[in-house]
Amino acid sequence: MKVQPDRLLADLEALAEVGNTGDGGNCRLALTDEDAGGRELVVGWMRSLGLAVRVDRIGNVVATRPGLDSSLDPVMTGSHIDTVRTGGRYDGTLGVLAGLEVVRALDDAGLRTRRPLAVAFFTDEEGSRFAPDMLGSLVYAGGMPLEDALDIVAIDGAVLGDELERIGWAGDAAVPGPAPHAYVELHIEQGPLLEEQGITIGAVTGVQGISWQEVVVTGQANHAGTTPMRLRHDAGYVAGSIVTFVRDLATALGGHQVATVGRLSLHPDLVNVVAARATLTVDLRNTDASVLAEAESGLRSHAEDVAAAEGVTLAWRRLAQFDPVAFDPSVVDLVEATARRLDLSVMRLPSGAGHDAQMLARVCPTGMVFVPSRAGISHNPAEYTSPDDLAAGAQVLAEVLVELAS
Amino acid sequence: MKVQPDRLLADLEALAEVGNTGDGGNCRLALTDEDAGGRELVVGWMRSLGLAVRVDRIGNVVATRPGLDSSLDPVMTGSHIDTVRTGGRYDGTLGVLAGLEVVRALDDAGLRTRRPLAVAFFTDEEGSRFAPDMLGSLVYAGGMPLEDALDIVAIDGAVLGDELERIGWAGDAAVPGPAPHAYVELHIEQGPLLEEQGITIGAVTGVQGISWQEVVVTGQANHAGTTPMRLRHDAGYVAGSIVTFVRDLATALGGHQVATVGRLSLHPDLVNVVAARATLTVDLRNTDASVLAEAESGLRSHAEDVAAAEGVTLAWRRLAQFDPVAFDPSVVDLVEATARRLDLSVMRLPSGAGHDAQMLARVCPTGMVFVPSRAGISHNPAEYTSPDDLAAGAQVLAEVLVELAS
Repeated sequence: MKVQPDRLLADLEALAEVGNTGDGGNCRLALTDEDAGGRELVVGWMRSLGLAVRVDRIGNVVATRPGLDSSLDPVMTGSHIDTVRTGGRYDGTLGVLAGLEVVRALDDAGLRTRRPLAVAFFTDEEGSRFAPDMLGSLVYAGGMPLEDALDIVAIDGAVLGDELERIGWAGDAAVPGPAPHAYVELHIEQGPLLEEQGITIGAVTGVQGISWQEVVVTGQANHAGTTPMRLRHDAGYVAGSIVTFVRDLATALGGHQVATVGRLSLHPDLVNVVAARATLTVDLRNTDASVLAEAESGLRSHAEDVAAAEGVTLAWRRLAQFDPVAFDPSVVDLVEATARRLDLSVMRLPSGAGHDAQMLARVCPTGMVFVPSRAGISHNPAEYTSPDDLAAGAQVLAEVLVELAS
Repeated sequence: MKVQPDRLLADLEALAEVGNTGDGGNCRLALTDEDAGGRELVVGWMRSLGLAVRVDRIGNVVATRPGLDSSLDPVMTGSHIDTVRTGGRYDGTLGVLAGLEVVRALDDAGLRTRRPLAVAFFTDEEGSRFAPDMLGSLVYAGGMPLEDALDIVAIDGAVLGDELERIGWAGDAAVPGPAPHAYVELHIEQGPLLEEQGITIGAVTGVQGISWQEVVVTGQANHAGTTPMRLRHDAGYVAGSIVTFVRDLATALGGHQVATVGRLSLHPDLVNVVAARATLTVDLRNTDASVLAEAESGLRSHAEDVAAAEGVTLAWRRLAQFDPVAFDPSVVDLVEATARRLDLSVMRLPSGAGHDAQMLARVCPTGMVFVPSRAGISHNPAEYTSPDDLAAGAQVLAEVLVELAS
């Protein structure tokens, strides 16, 4: 059984025409007309492959190919087809369309797996229009009540449930959905590690835990010329000290710890006025929950020390917190062994970004397959993965699914 | 000869009614109708004191009281009556109205000085509407050609020369103006030092040199989750490192060195994206030009090192540069000795803010008298100096002027 890269590439190209932004990118924000267009196209392909298509009440779509024993739970693959506003053509779509190519390859080979095989796409993975992200898979896995999800208001003011009805994708299948036997998702890395190491396949070990905090530093505005350094309560200085500390912290913790101050603004933001207020965010991520907690407490402790010394106050607001997710070791092993068997270079790595797989990991053994992202670029029209790497990832996915379904 | 504080306070109060912002503050931006209203009021007082009023071609007003020998150059005092948009009632106005009170006190005592005594107010000291600041005194002292000044375009699009004509204050006296024998200006400190030390009179030794630079750091936007620390080109980190370095630099240089990052912004300014660009300003000030140059080169050197290590580029833009101004030692000594003789506490200090006096220092021996600003606050409706301190400053000014004019 061999996937045919040309068919996969043709499907990626066809889907990229829906919400084509003209610059190589895609915009199919969740539950917009463009999203609906993408859904129709993909579900059309699902039906033409003879799959049984089920749409649930949050708009997730699961297309199932029967197994030899259809009383068994299916092995599921999938991802999402919504995009960010400035999306590329591989993020999410690869996992869904590679799943369909696996079905075609099985059909070509006249193979039927013991367990059913399901290809899913989940609603609103990106969270760009309706927060939080990974919403559809979260509801599928029972992490959020349906009613709460339907009430979510978009950044454009629309209500999720209304939009789902409007575009005609409010299905009747119940949520939470049935737990699969296993879930494996193929996705682009969206980071630079595979490319940097010259490796084709990533056997994803899990998803980093995420801590997002906002810190508002309140000091006192003063004249930059007339106020001696020792009499200042400079919110900007404290913010700068947090920025450099965060870098030192990540370096000291090492491993896969990352730490980022991506937002920072000063008030009144004038060249000759000591800042009265600084607002900044700190994004900390680690695969190890205890190290992540250590990073958080180190940050808190440094910030409080420097704030006390400067005579400013701090207000903390938690913007997000996700525990690390460890994928099932046997699935990770299987992905790695499969790649090796196919003579593909492979490395284990955690995912720095969130994926539907982390929600499915709540209910079944789960793993992911990564393929390289050129320059680590994603959420950008320049997002790119070579045809060879796409094909390699799809073949690994196919063989892993067949193994799990046998 | 004794100044009468009540008259000075009454004048300050009357002038504060012109452009009263209703919150204790004043708005008389240069060459607006409010500025014109202030000018009419003050020139009315000048004329009622029998002073010879001369308006020059940039709108500076010089009111002269004859001396015993009117062939001698006058001793001049003064300041400005324009304000920032959120101005207080003492910044500038104190120096002008205290000058008029000195004239009244001399009249009361039947005293005539040997040299003429001139009370001036200079156009557009604040620079809030027409940049640069201290414009009128700069033109008076020959530091900018009249034609260039008249062509300056305001933040509201108006042309300076047109506005000067419109409000009727384009005089016919030539600029540059005649150099006085000496110039002494009374001003609120606009900083916290006198109040902190519990001292009434500041004998101002000079004005700090100012270096304003903007730095644009250009790195690369990356995903905060998927990009390992070692592969980042984080403009925000480099900006933070400059912020903390600038503080360390000021501490290391000590003395009156001050250093401020008052503006800082990131792009794209998202919690989960490594900043591609950071724009920040660095304000460095010192009374010693060589130390200021050392601070600049230390800043440049640190920033270039950290930028090279991070793989980002820097673009520098100079926003302002003023050399330090040292006031005439004999005038500074005279201010200090006069305060002591009056049993007023006194300290020497440099000015961290710019003043008309620094322009007059180009053409004659110059000094300044500072009185305390509550909490160091200025350019704010909360600007406040106690009546006792106002009176003490005016008395010191009176005696210094009489001494210089004798």
